[in-house]
Amino acid sequence: MLSLFHYLKPNRMDILKLNSNRKRILILGCGFAGLSFTKHFRDKSCEILVIDKHNYFTFQPLLYQVATGGLEPDSVAYPIRKLFSGINPVSFRMAEAYSVDLEKKLLITSIGELPYDVLIIATGSTTNYFNLPGIEEFALPMKTLPQSLDLRSFILQSFEKALLAESPDEKLPYLNFVIAGGGPTGIEIAGALAEFKHVLPGDYPELDFSLMRIAIVEASGEILGSMSEESRLSASRQLTEIGVELILNSKIASYDGNVISLVEGNKINSKCLIWTAGVKANPLNGLSNDAYTLAGKIKTDEFNRVIGCEDVYALGDVCQIYRSDSEIRYPMLAPVAIQQGKNLARNLMSNIRDEWKAFEYKDRGTMATIGRSKAVADLGRYKLKGFLAWLAWLFIHLILLVGYRNRIVVLINWMWNYFSYDRAIRLIIRPFIPKKNE
Amino acid sequence: MLSLFHYLKPNRMDILKLNSNRKRILILGCGFAGLSFTKHFRDKSCEILVIDKHNYFTFQPLLYQVATGGLEPDSVAYPIRKLFSGINPVSFRMAEAYSVDLEKKLLITSIGELPYDVLIIATGSTTNYFNLPGIEEFALPMKTLPQSLDLRSFILQSFEKALLAESPDEKLPYLNFVIAGGGPTGIEIAGALAEFKHVLPGDYPELDFSLMRIAIVEASGEILGSMSEESRLSASRQLTEIGVELILNSKIASYDGNVISLVEGNKINSKCLIWTAGVKANPLNGLSNDAYTLAGKIKTDEFNRVIGCEDVYALGDVCQIYRSDSEIRYPMLAPVAIQQGKNLARNLMSNIRDEWKAFEYKDRGTMATIGRSKAVADLGRYKLKGFLAWLAWLFIHLILLVGYRNRIVVLINWMWNYFSYDRAIRLIIRPFIPKKNE
Repeated sequence: MLSLFHYLKPNRMDILKLNSNRKRILILGCGFAGLSFTKHFRDKSCEILVIDKHNYFTFQPLLYQVATGGLEPDSVAYPIRKLFSGINPVSFRMAEAYSVDLEKKLLITSIGELPYDVLIIATGSTTNYFNLPGIEEFALPMKTLPQSLDLRSFILQSFEKALLAESPDEKLPYLNFVIAGGGPTGIEIAGALAEFKHVLPGDYPELDFSLMRIAIVEASGEILGSMSEESRLSASRQLTEIGVELILNSKIASYDGNVISLVEGNKINSKCLIWTAGVKANPLNGLSNDAYTLAGKIKTDEFNRVIGCEDVYALGDVCQIYRSDSEIRYPMLAPVAIQQGKNLARNLMSNIRDEWKAFEYKDRGTMATIGRSKAVADLGRYKLKGFLAWLAWLFIHLILLVGYRNRIVVLINWMWNYFSYDRAIRLIIRPFIPKKNE
Repeated sequence: MLSLFHYLKPNRMDILKLNSNRKRILILGCGFAGLSFTKHFRDKSCEILVIDKHNYFTFQPLLYQVATGGLEPDSVAYPIRKLFSGINPVSFRMAEAYSVDLEKKLLITSIGELPYDVLIIATGSTTNYFNLPGIEEFALPMKTLPQSLDLRSFILQSFEKALLAESPDEKLPYLNFVIAGGGPTGIEIAGALAEFKHVLPGDYPELDFSLMRIAIVEASGEILGSMSEESRLSASRQLTEIGVELILNSKIASYDGNVISLVEGNKINSKCLIWTAGVKANPLNGLSNDAYTLAGKIKTDEFNRVIGCEDVYALGDVCQIYRSDSEIRYPMLAPVAIQQGKNLARNLMSNIRDEWKAFEYKDRGTMATIGRSKAVADLGRYKLKGFLAWLAWLFIHLILLVGYRNRIVVLINWMWNYFSYDRAIRLIIRPFIPKKNE
């Protein structure tokens, strides 16, 4: 990323033609939290500058469909500039942030030092490899759009290589897909891979698809730990039905690109380990040491104010809310980020600090899709499963998607995939070999 | 590309479970020529093996729309395996070919040595930089899907950088888009860039779009040299209308990433030089020296038989047909490749060599689109221009596109672009910095 900006002179303050009469709100990160804040903040006496290292907003819940050839990458992302086009007080700059200078009220970035009156840190989270040997080097993450495209290429390359391998023994590692982590993302990618068993035999008539194996390795005793027992059991049943193996109470110890070693000593031969086992906060440097938790999150109060700082806020996955010194644990999910962004926007629009509302999370439910007509959903007291849960999942994700063009294209692809039993977008546009991630 | 295959042992003959009773036709390259041959060849006594270094067929005429954010890359490409799925005698292997061993009848590839009874070389063409200093290093080609995506990223990055530049003088090079070559591709990309003047101001309210300049540098005295005079004049007029400058009778001498030097001595400051000025054949090594023309094409007779070889044929851009020692020059275009593939398929299906038909090109016309409601078309005696030519262009390209899903998605995108005056897919998914091409 850095090289993108190598033409720029450092330390330039004039990049933004700042209007000195207006209060400058600088938002770092245009994910669900940053976007939600910007959408709900309507105060023309302020100017908003949004900084992100990408020029697009990523709709992360559908990345797994990009990785499995069900959707184009371009329909799960949306250009940030287009989001803010015509919205007067919002500007955008594509830049990477390095740290904050709290005293001078400057954000140090790849395009210079940017002054702020209010700083909102919404940098989200990144994949957590837990420092396990070989994982960052060889396992495949799926947190960003380029990573999902790499995964798509890698999965398709596996079938090409399986075809060329001499014996079933040599083919097996290419057809063993192992997913680390039994959360919604892990379930969804496993389900999509299971559908490949029906989609791909036409493509590879010479390949014996009974050799293909999909396994989820989960450290705890059950998948979808955050969902209701009913949904957990139903999801396990639905996954087993489509041939996904669940390896529970198992932790991965290491991976060398060929063999996955479990802590208990078992080994799995696999060329493809998909890592959805954990995320960690992606914090900004420069705050006082007290402002970070041991896990690297940024500590805030119930109003998302960063502890010990003036005019600095943190939202979403990167923040850890404390209420009278005790942690309040919210799941690292889009709805939490969206609600925090909205709450902060409303608070900042009010001049009377006494009227500020402390953040409270309204859990509207969680859902996970497993595949064709298969899903589970906890919606308050209602627990849906199977076809109904699946329809609800499709409908809600279509509504949440950003942009009408994206919605139309996604809907058509879904209809296409459903009626043709196909995943049409199986292109290896850029072949991918895992290497040490940047 | 090569690294993709590094797990494989070399020189393996057993990669294909070859049925020794059937004649093996090996097709190298799945572009328009190779695909056309495979589609028209229906003889179950033969088995066909298609080799390509990509796993998809690229519909090159629409690559410029990918480069300018009008279409998703996934809708102008089609998985090769899906093309041949269920067609009994056709297999596919993703591999790169190095050379041919005519004596042993082997094709030497990245996945081993592949035996053939009949070899069809349809390797197409690649960008010709004419060995001009700096061009291959810094200019941007647009012959493949990854190149088009790189160009899309680069164009969008230019606007981001223009925004950050301090003075109009510093902004100019980022907003000067120069296209080398006034053929259909050059015209089409220039027209699409001209539309950015209307699409992007909402995205970049701080940027003065009157600074944006689009120029076509053409070595000859006119653009679209292969079209009728009427169409050439009309295209010039339509391009001038939308603000595209035509720099005729001018050759580019060199480029250093910042300054384009013309042969006459003039210089243009531009960070973006798009190279559509020439293509050259992409031949296979291993034929006798007499089989190559000076320009690197493969010499064939009128039946596309490679001169001096048994059972080796060449089709499309890579071949140069000779009739009684004199060259017959066909344009390096998809229709020629398609017709040659069809003619050869029919010839090879007939056992009586006396009945073989010499190739003759039926020119059904050429067309080029310039932008919204702007195009030119030479269809036999009919010369269309403007809206009618544009509609004809849209219709024909939609029909020629491979795959129903692609057609639906492309149609929706075109309708979206037309009615919203938008180019929605302006994502910098992978930032791109030009470097020495591989």
